Amino acid sequence: MTKDIQALVFDAYGTLFDVHSVTRLADARFPGRGAALSQAWRVKQLEYTWLRSLMGRYDDFNAVTAEALDWALESLGLAATAADRADLRQAYRELSLFPEVRGALERLAEGRTLAILSNGHPEMLDAVVDHNELRVHFGERVLSVHEVGVFKPDPRVYALATAHLGLAPEAIGFVSSNGWDAAGAKSFGFRAYWVNRGKAPVERLGSPPDRVVADLGELAGLLA
Amino acid sequence: MTKDIQALVFDAYGTLFDVHSVTRLADARFPGRGAALSQAWRVKQLEYTWLRSLMGRYDDFNAVTAEALDWALESLGLAATAADRADLRQAYRELSLFPEVRGALERLAEGRTLAILSNGHPEMLDAVVDHNELRVHFGERVLSVHEVGVFKPDPRVYALATAHLGLAPEAIGFVSSNGWDAAGAKSFGFRAYWVNRGKAPVERLGSPPDRVVADLGELAGLLA
Repeated sequence: MTKDIQALVFDAYGTLFDVHSVTRLADARFPGRGAALSQAWRVKQLEYTWLRSLMGRYDDFNAVTAEALDWALESLGLAATAADRADLRQAYRELSLFPEVRGALERLAEGRTLAILSNGHPEMLDAVVDHNELRVHFGERVLSVHEVGVFKPDPRVYALATAHLGLAPEAIGFVSSNGWDAAGAKSFGFRAYWVNRGKAPVERLGSPPDRVVADLGELAGLLA
Repeated sequence: MTKDIQALVFDAYGTLFDVHSVTRLADARFPGRGAALSQAWRVKQLEYTWLRSLMGRYDDFNAVTAEALDWALESLGLAATAADRADLRQAYRELSLFPEVRGALERLAEGRTLAILSNGHPEMLDAVVDHNELRVHFGERVLSVHEVGVFKPDPRVYALATAHLGLAPEAIGFVSSNGWDAAGAKSFGFRAYWVNRGKAPVERLGSPPDRVVADLGELAGLLA
């Protein structure tokens, strides 16, 4: 089956880029609370993407991320200045890669097209892709939900990949560390690879992933 | 403004009924882990309602609640028997009222129509309403998302209340302890009362509630 996969489409945040790489900055500003802030921020950010999509009140990921940060700061009772907030938001444009990503992408690129499909605003995505010098692998194939005005896992988002790549869903392998995103991709018709970095249980959403891997290195081995 | 409110529509779970009243049973089966299980179960249950709605893969609240329980048990490493699972699911039909609810509903019913609008499956909702002897206040006005096949905060859900009650959105006060549900209701056009039982920050979703109250007793005083 895996030889029929002509393109691999990657989720960005949490899959290629470590969203918790903001923890260090957060911990410097709020000693001992960095991990809690990073965690609360991420959970709320995802919630807001789902809720705004369902409400029919899309706003871009920059705005949602800023609103989620404000909520998380207040929920933890942290008094942040405007500069703290701006710096934390800026950190999202300079997230680190997970350590195995660069090597794995080089192996996965052999004979296949690579793309990114993300909730991120295009400008925010371009910033973090270029910050990590990943343009060589993805070119212009850095696709954002902003084009359709709704967030994952709405099927209109996954349809962006088939449209931009000119491929049928079954010719695309979708790679995400977010179990719910892998489920949405599988439900759409992609072959779904779940990068289970956190050793979490499989999401019970009716569309389990085709394969579960620990990281992108294991995926590269699987698809070699 | 409040005198123009002709009907009050209540969320069920978390607003009238305490979803964490399953904690005692959970703690009896898994000593010391009851609160963690109840919490993880509830968070995942909500996530699944949002995700399935976005994926276009509605399944009823009984199914979603059972799937969320299975995930929560696995995530906490709790070995549950089929009987444990059945008993925990059954507990959802026998949730307790928050202590002030009965008295507050009696006051709030004066001169107004009361209704429930919930994610729950109709049969599950009827069970918990009758278990708590609330039929006297709500009659047949126990409305379920099951009719539209999508969960809150999709606006089609809130439209069930205007359709069934034959009222314009601005004549309806919507009462929820879930901040995101209050935001969805406000976005739809209801007057929104957020019962902030957990002293949480206001959700940043672009449609803050009209009023925030600590419990339904405070709401009854406000609308007297």
